[in-house]
Amino acid sequence: MTGDARTHRTACVLSVGDELVLGQGLDTNARWISERLLALGVRPIEHVTVEDDLERQRDILREMARRADVVVVTGGLGPTKDDLTRQALASAMDDELVEDEGSLEFLFDLERERGRTMTDERRAQALRPSRGRSLDNGFGTAPGRFGTVEGCDVICLPGPPREMRPRVEAHVAPALRPAAGARTMTRVLRTYGLAEADAGARLGALMERAGVDDTMVGVTASGGIVSVRMRARDGATLDRLEAEAREAMGETVFGYEDETLERLVVRLLGERGERVTVAESCTGGLLGASITSVPGSSDVYNGGVLTYADEAKTYLLGVQPDVFESHGAVSEPCARSMAEGALRAPTGVRAAHALAVTGIAGPGGGSDEKPVGTVFIGYARRGHETVVKRFLIAGDRDDVRARSVVAALGMLSYALRGAEAPGRLLWEVDL
Amino acid sequence: MTGDARTHRTACVLSVGDELVLGQGLDTNARWISERLLALGVRPIEHVTVEDDLERQRDILREMARRADVVVVTGGLGPTKDDLTRQALASAMDDELVEDEGSLEFLFDLERERGRTMTDERRAQALRPSRGRSLDNGFGTAPGRFGTVEGCDVICLPGPPREMRPRVEAHVAPALRPAAGARTMTRVLRTYGLAEADAGARLGALMERAGVDDTMVGVTASGGIVSVRMRARDGATLDRLEAEAREAMGETVFGYEDETLERLVVRLLGERGERVTVAESCTGGLLGASITSVPGSSDVYNGGVLTYADEAKTYLLGVQPDVFESHGAVSEPCARSMAEGALRAPTGVRAAHALAVTGIAGPGGGSDEKPVGTVFIGYARRGHETVVKRFLIAGDRDDVRARSVVAALGMLSYALRGAEAPGRLLWEVDL
Repeated sequence: MTGDARTHRTACVLSVGDELVLGQGLDTNARWISERLLALGVRPIEHVTVEDDLERQRDILREMARRADVVVVTGGLGPTKDDLTRQALASAMDDELVEDEGSLEFLFDLERERGRTMTDERRAQALRPSRGRSLDNGFGTAPGRFGTVEGCDVICLPGPPREMRPRVEAHVAPALRPAAGARTMTRVLRTYGLAEADAGARLGALMERAGVDDTMVGVTASGGIVSVRMRARDGATLDRLEAEAREAMGETVFGYEDETLERLVVRLLGERGERVTVAESCTGGLLGASITSVPGSSDVYNGGVLTYADEAKTYLLGVQPDVFESHGAVSEPCARSMAEGALRAPTGVRAAHALAVTGIAGPGGGSDEKPVGTVFIGYARRGHETVVKRFLIAGDRDDVRARSVVAALGMLSYALRGAEAPGRLLWEVDL
Repeated sequence: MTGDARTHRTACVLSVGDELVLGQGLDTNARWISERLLALGVRPIEHVTVEDDLERQRDILREMARRADVVVVTGGLGPTKDDLTRQALASAMDDELVEDEGSLEFLFDLERERGRTMTDERRAQALRPSRGRSLDNGFGTAPGRFGTVEGCDVICLPGPPREMRPRVEAHVAPALRPAAGARTMTRVLRTYGLAEADAGARLGALMERAGVDDTMVGVTASGGIVSVRMRARDGATLDRLEAEAREAMGETVFGYEDETLERLVVRLLGERGERVTVAESCTGGLLGASITSVPGSSDVYNGGVLTYADEAKTYLLGVQPDVFESHGAVSEPCARSMAEGALRAPTGVRAAHALAVTGIAGPGGGSDEKPVGTVFIGYARRGHETVVKRFLIAGDRDDVRARSVVAALGMLSYALRGAEAPGRLLWEVDL
């Protein structure tokens, strides 16, 4: 790669295309490229998506060149009139376009191979800035382009992910010049049990270091799982951050990176040679689906029952009709009876663990005493006392159902880890 | 909404969050918001994703304010120290933060309801620019924020899509002031049964009108559902496009706009006063979850069984062990026996319809004869002959499972509509 030998500390990522800006397509390139850049030691600092517009593309390239050391562009390299990335790059470089011999040869070969004839439109793909370079290779049709704008390296790649991704590995990765030791390392701890704000409060001062030495601790929450994201320049710092974060988050930590509760539960059950079964009312199958989303779950799971109606709870799980009369189907006794009934359900090999979920997912069915979002989860374990917890889950029907699954797997995960849950689990309320 | 009465012709969309910039999460908000803005008559011109950084957030808000008439921001409104959108908005407005009474009251109520105490972190969510406004409402925790930067309206919404989307409908849509005549009308027909390319071939010349008079017919496919999207400036043109599209797509059309097979099936069953039950192997609960995702599904669905292991199929559905020995659990006879067994399963009121799914979702378990993606779906109907179809579904484990649900509901939907399916349903192969 040409350009001056400036170190690549930071990067901007530019996605080009009317359809992306108008929301008719979802850009996944910026995310993918950023993840790769970060792993390669260059920190992405911004993504921008712009229309197919020559002036705007030129201006944003110049803005990005002032703010970052390298810019990766995807899109706008095709053969149609709205593909303007080549011109925009030349314009940002105060340069002019020339035909690239190698690219032209490549394009002629390609069209011959496909039995098509060369057109002016297709030939335009051979253009590059006179002081730029071509990033030819065997993928797709449009050759990539490289140029330097105000000292910043600009790498232009085709938009289709299948063409773009191999070129990042072939052209971008080897050409990056991360600062010595600048490779930013990241680590994620996944937790369940605390709300985001409570996690933030526990982490406290650890989160205030943002920016210092490129070290960062942040918290994000999604569907009940709170992730503690750490970033540092070196492994020792990362280890220290992790140790402090673990201390702060305690037993709520259940895994690293993209670990999920369902994978953890399937693995821990597998290690014990034990099985789990489910009895689902309001979740309607989501809990079973979550467990069986894990490849290999058949080692720890034979099946379960979907008991949406009261009669189904009675016939399939043995819940006594007077439970419904005295307490209702959404109640502590019902969740208890469902979980204990599930342990006895004839799914083959006896399960050691059973989870039962009964609740009001909404939009209808709520009352003052039991508002929408009220969910009882029963956990029966062979040789142990059955535990029932009551949860009050915010959100719409989908949220209540999805989070009920998280709560159920969360309860089981604490039991299987032999860990003590924080005072009350996320969303838990008194019975 | 305050601000001057400037017409909203163009919009910028800003997504905030370190994890998005670093590629640790995929932003889907900008696309969704852009699609809505366009439908509402306001043209999105740029998306930007920035780090949780006060100065940069302030600067980009000012830049966007100069380039567009309205800016929609998502993210950075949470309770932790890295949530800086409130401060950035105030700073871009040259304003200071004050505590919003309504927000504070809302937050106090919320925490009380959940049995939690107010902390400084949570209380920070009540802050707003003194000349701005709060966009409070019942969703989630973080209230939205509104302010005007250099004459441009800035609307700040929480990042989680489930919290953000209803607020766009509640706060953004009614407040937009699109230019007269800028509103484009759209209509969507939803179909199941044909592949995208076959749908395109049927629509033929109808799709070639793209661009003329802003009139357009396009096809998109997602998870087996092929949507025919029509766009026009007036209703008469839209009606004409729809009539032609319906003629081309025939019996595959099952609904408008965001209609789903599960909603259709629940509605049609309700009209007949009939019930459906399920027996799930490879889908593990996804089919039951799909049916019960529809509010009111309890009128047409009592429950079902999750029979992942062979023994569970035998004990819960009466599948004879010699079926496994002679044909395997993934076979026509097994799907047939599961469906017929499900009709007899004790879920209370007798179901008139039963769907059974057994297949190889992968990644393991495939063979030459039955590769990964092989799925048998049985449909048993009281008083009718049981139908079993074999499908070969491309994709990973999640794809195979999700598409099996679509195929099962698709089979039931044709039966309930009394419609004849096209020669072979999407993904169907010979038995």
